Amino acid sequence: MATEAELIAAGDKYIPKDYDPALYKLRHSLAHVLAQAVCEKFPQAKPTIGPPIEFGFYYDFDLDVNPTDGDLEWIANRMRQIIKGKHAFKVREITADEGRALFKDNPYKLELIDGLAKGKDEYGNEAVGAPTLTVYQQDTFVDLCRGPHVPTTGDLDAKGFKIQQVTGSYWRGDSKNKMLKRFHATAWASADDLKAHLERLEEAERRDHRKIGRELELFANEPVFGAGFPMLLPKGATIRRILESFIMEYERKAGYQHVFTPDIAKKELYKISGHWDNYKDSMFPPMDMGEGGNDNEELCLRPMCCPHHIQVYKSKQRSYRDLPIRIAELGNMYRFERSGVVGGLSRVRCMTLNDAHLFVRPDQVKGEIAGVLALMKKAYADLGITEYRFRLSKNDDPSGPAKGKYVDNPAMWESSTKMLREVLQESGLPFFEAWGEAAFYGPKIDVQVKDVMGREETLSTIQADQHLPNQFQLEYKDSDDTPKRPVMIHRGVISTMERMTSYLIELYAGAFPVWLAPVQVAIVPIADRHFEFAQKLGDALLDADYRAEVDLSSGRMQAKIRDAAKMKVPYILVIGDKEMEANAVSVRLRDGTDLGAKPVPEFLAMLERVVKSRTLKLVP
Amino acid sequence: MATEAELIAAGDKYIPKDYDPALYKLRHSLAHVLAQAVCEKFPQAKPTIGPPIEFGFYYDFDLDVNPTDGDLEWIANRMRQIIKGKHAFKVREITADEGRALFKDNPYKLELIDGLAKGKDEYGNEAVGAPTLTVYQQDTFVDLCRGPHVPTTGDLDAKGFKIQQVTGSYWRGDSKNKMLKRFHATAWASADDLKAHLERLEEAERRDHRKIGRELELFANEPVFGAGFPMLLPKGATIRRILESFIMEYERKAGYQHVFTPDIAKKELYKISGHWDNYKDSMFPPMDMGEGGNDNEELCLRPMCCPHHIQVYKSKQRSYRDLPIRIAELGNMYRFERSGVVGGLSRVRCMTLNDAHLFVRPDQVKGEIAGVLALMKKAYADLGITEYRFRLSKNDDPSGPAKGKYVDNPAMWESSTKMLREVLQESGLPFFEAWGEAAFYGPKIDVQVKDVMGREETLSTIQADQHLPNQFQLEYKDSDDTPKRPVMIHRGVISTMERMTSYLIELYAGAFPVWLAPVQVAIVPIADRHFEFAQKLGDALLDADYRAEVDLSSGRMQAKIRDAAKMKVPYILVIGDKEMEANAVSVRLRDGTDLGAKPVPEFLAMLERVVKSRTLKLVP
Repeated sequence: MATEAELIAAGDKYIPKDYDPALYKLRHSLAHVLAQAVCEKFPQAKPTIGPPIEFGFYYDFDLDVNPTDGDLEWIANRMRQIIKGKHAFKVREITADEGRALFKDNPYKLELIDGLAKGKDEYGNEAVGAPTLTVYQQDTFVDLCRGPHVPTTGDLDAKGFKIQQVTGSYWRGDSKNKMLKRFHATAWASADDLKAHLERLEEAERRDHRKIGRELELFANEPVFGAGFPMLLPKGATIRRILESFIMEYERKAGYQHVFTPDIAKKELYKISGHWDNYKDSMFPPMDMGEGGNDNEELCLRPMCCPHHIQVYKSKQRSYRDLPIRIAELGNMYRFERSGVVGGLSRVRCMTLNDAHLFVRPDQVKGEIAGVLALMKKAYADLGITEYRFRLSKNDDPSGPAKGKYVDNPAMWESSTKMLREVLQESGLPFFEAWGEAAFYGPKIDVQVKDVMGREETLSTIQADQHLPNQFQLEYKDSDDTPKRPVMIHRGVISTMERMTSYLIELYAGAFPVWLAPVQVAIVPIADRHFEFAQKLGDALLDADYRAEVDLSSGRMQAKIRDAAKMKVPYILVIGDKEMEANAVSVRLRDGTDLGAKPVPEFLAMLERVVKSRTLKLVP
Repeated sequence: MATEAELIAAGDKYIPKDYDPALYKLRHSLAHVLAQAVCEKFPQAKPTIGPPIEFGFYYDFDLDVNPTDGDLEWIANRMRQIIKGKHAFKVREITADEGRALFKDNPYKLELIDGLAKGKDEYGNEAVGAPTLTVYQQDTFVDLCRGPHVPTTGDLDAKGFKIQQVTGSYWRGDSKNKMLKRFHATAWASADDLKAHLERLEEAERRDHRKIGRELELFANEPVFGAGFPMLLPKGATIRRILESFIMEYERKAGYQHVFTPDIAKKELYKISGHWDNYKDSMFPPMDMGEGGNDNEELCLRPMCCPHHIQVYKSKQRSYRDLPIRIAELGNMYRFERSGVVGGLSRVRCMTLNDAHLFVRPDQVKGEIAGVLALMKKAYADLGITEYRFRLSKNDDPSGPAKGKYVDNPAMWESSTKMLREVLQESGLPFFEAWGEAAFYGPKIDVQVKDVMGREETLSTIQADQHLPNQFQLEYKDSDDTPKRPVMIHRGVISTMERMTSYLIELYAGAFPVWLAPVQVAIVPIADRHFEFAQKLGDALLDADYRAEVDLSSGRMQAKIRDAAKMKVPYILVIGDKEMEANAVSVRLRDGTDLGAKPVPEFLAMLERVVKSRTLKLVP
């Protein structure tokens, strides 16, 4: 039998790599404290499992009453008492039979023990070797648990946690099982940390692109389209069109050639590219187009555009003088994800990527990647994205476990990774390296941004690829007339249209800079006699390619101004007798600022300056 | 037994409605004459079937030699002799057993006789009632045939036909059967008609969008994408982008709101809309996204955008004041077609339609349709499409056989058709009416154009629909606060991007007007010392949003000019010492015209004028 010290130390290995160990232990311990309080409040409750999660923890109980707010308050208060009791978390090893005796009234724990005894973890997945069974006890509460925990409940902050809600949750996530009650809580090392988190949460809710998307009528998720297939309503579609034209113009001027390739191809194509072998789980099911013998092919919705742009490259003979060839497309890609994990615009099943593939000679790789980085910086600056960092994303750490599926060609990985590292070093840009984050065919440079909650995610990516050129036997004729193999650079600049739109919605909390705003100008005539002037001004703005809406409804002026400000329209132009007489408009900004009356030409000049410069300011 | 006159008259009912009866009989008769000549040349040949087709006829033989050009000449000459022999086409009725005796050495005719005896036609399809068996004989040749024919071979023009080629063809179109030899011929009432047809054919070949698409690098059909999924190469993609921006600008200014809706939806959506019941055969097979019980939905690639735009309409409460609401999208639609019938850009399996759906009050229907007609006329004029006519396309002729699947609601069909007819009448536009050409949910106004061969097809369409608003229970709140049902107008203006692009390629034989040309200006520096000036001019044009290519290759000037002209680049600017000195360019047009030297600003002014006016001329 292991000693207590050994048992405690053994718990540490369950802390995920990216999780702060102190927070992990604290949250795990609080879960036990909560479970004790819940079982005291509801003696019939059967605790199941209660792991730490991002920002806190949950605990699932088989419990046939719905806890009231009062119950939750009682539980939180009782938790604070337990914390103040400074009870030690004591661990001891048990045999499966001891466990079965101890938890004889709790079928969930019994199922866990059976699984553990067979070498499974608490989620029913295969574990490495049959684990030692342990129980942890604080005060009167004993739980089947592998740890780790803080030494005593006195190490927890009685004001550092908050029970947030109770939701339904199936045992083992399976809808065929019983619905349990899941208690959610956020937990931190101190009351200040908790407060800061709750503030971030509030800010994140305020900026939530799903909420703003609904309020500003940007997009909608219609269940009959299926999960993960949002539709862009007129205002959201306008933003996407602007983003598309914006990046395509930059690309055209940087020597990219845009194409349209099909969203579909025969499965055969993805077998050659390796997607079928390495990426099948993320692909939609193939469609059997069987035509009675002579055409029983299977078609797949494309998971990525690379094999398609390769066909463009192959459509004619290429010479060393033709390279680099930069093929770009706003390409639809389909990704199979479980309906439960998709939502809003940020996690979708079909996305349109600002995609491009550069076919280059080996001596051009670094220069072209530097060109992509320069294009990225320019585009990000225009979009007002200032906080991001670069990550060199590599395949698996040779000393660690396999994290993904990667093509097996160590020399290729080494040389491609070296190439990307050198470009980053020479660019002088700060970057960090990470294992297990590459594409299956090669390493990447990822551009990492953070959301309000501090979660980091990838917005753009550049990949150096020597795998697909081999698979497709790509060639160009070199100056000495011999065939050579090009290197492929895969790159996005402004990510998918869906991801970038959702990111910008949250970045600006819906108050877009004027050049991106779906409606730039709202025109509010005070009375019916101002309607004609208002409509003419609206038409003139439309003719000059601005986006204006004239409010000809019967509402009152103040209400119309309020409505436009709520829709985050940058400029609200009020028109009454004085304005009409002077060919002027009274300009209000969406934040309430009143710029007073301006002659129409002066307002137009300002609007033009603001839009052309892509400034974030409303008054230049 | 029927008389000969009755038998001859009976043949007339097999002439298709849209086929000129005289030409039908002539071609059918020539098929017999050809069969006689072929059997004389190759006594082992077994004739199978030989129907009239568009522009001529074919005849399939079981024949194990490949006819040489000499053989075909012999056959054509022999046909002329038979024609000059003025042999009558004699018909007589036979029993199945007589037929079996007569054709005992020809298993194909025996199979036909068996089928006919069982009430099938010569293609093996069910026929209406067991037909009378007849044979026709001219000269020495007897064929199983239902007619009709001309009275004698003397009624045929010995110089009015041409044998075009011999290809392989499976018996009954089934690759499991034996490969036959198909003799193709075109046949006309006179030598002049034949000549005119051959000239049209040559012109059609010259303008064939597949040929030009290849030569001008506009698009390619890559087999690994699957049949019917062309890719647009950079130059073809440029044309599509221009068409997209062009029509979207017109639509924006006409009060349309553009959206992006998903290319996919749950099958459920198409069950409600009626597509699943009425249009399933044209839909791609559903994809089963089964997720273990709680999400075993089937997803379909959308066959049309209408049910999707309906979701946009339904995304908020609508008032009578909000209508008309005009929802537009460059929407992808997927159409299941046999791989054998798709090809080029004109017949594809995925197409992007310039689609829109107008949700209107009943009192707005006519005005909105008139608005669409006006938009069409404007867009067509800009595109240089001048020859088209309007067709009122109705559901089935109540006195004729069912031609398509239509929703069953006679009152709805009557009122919608009446509405469209009135709009056409009030517009003063000439139109004709046709049965059996409606959409399954309502009648249409189709815009019909003709190709070089005189084939008429539909380029654009307007539909009045009272069916889908019912299916989806669409509503708006009327001025009296009661809920009312809107009418839907479905419309395309410039068709699908694929169809319009292929049409324009053929209309212009690749020599696009400047505003549509994928490359507008080719710059040809004479020697290396002119490269820098040429490149700067190219960059300046690119910066001003023109499409220019600078030829910095090592080729000779004349060859570079020829290459650019072959690619149908409207303006070819030659730059030598004199031009550089004077900041000028020597302007050649793609047709070889030499405009001489022009100062750069003068050329730019001309270019701007030509592009902005969308004129077809290169010199305004």
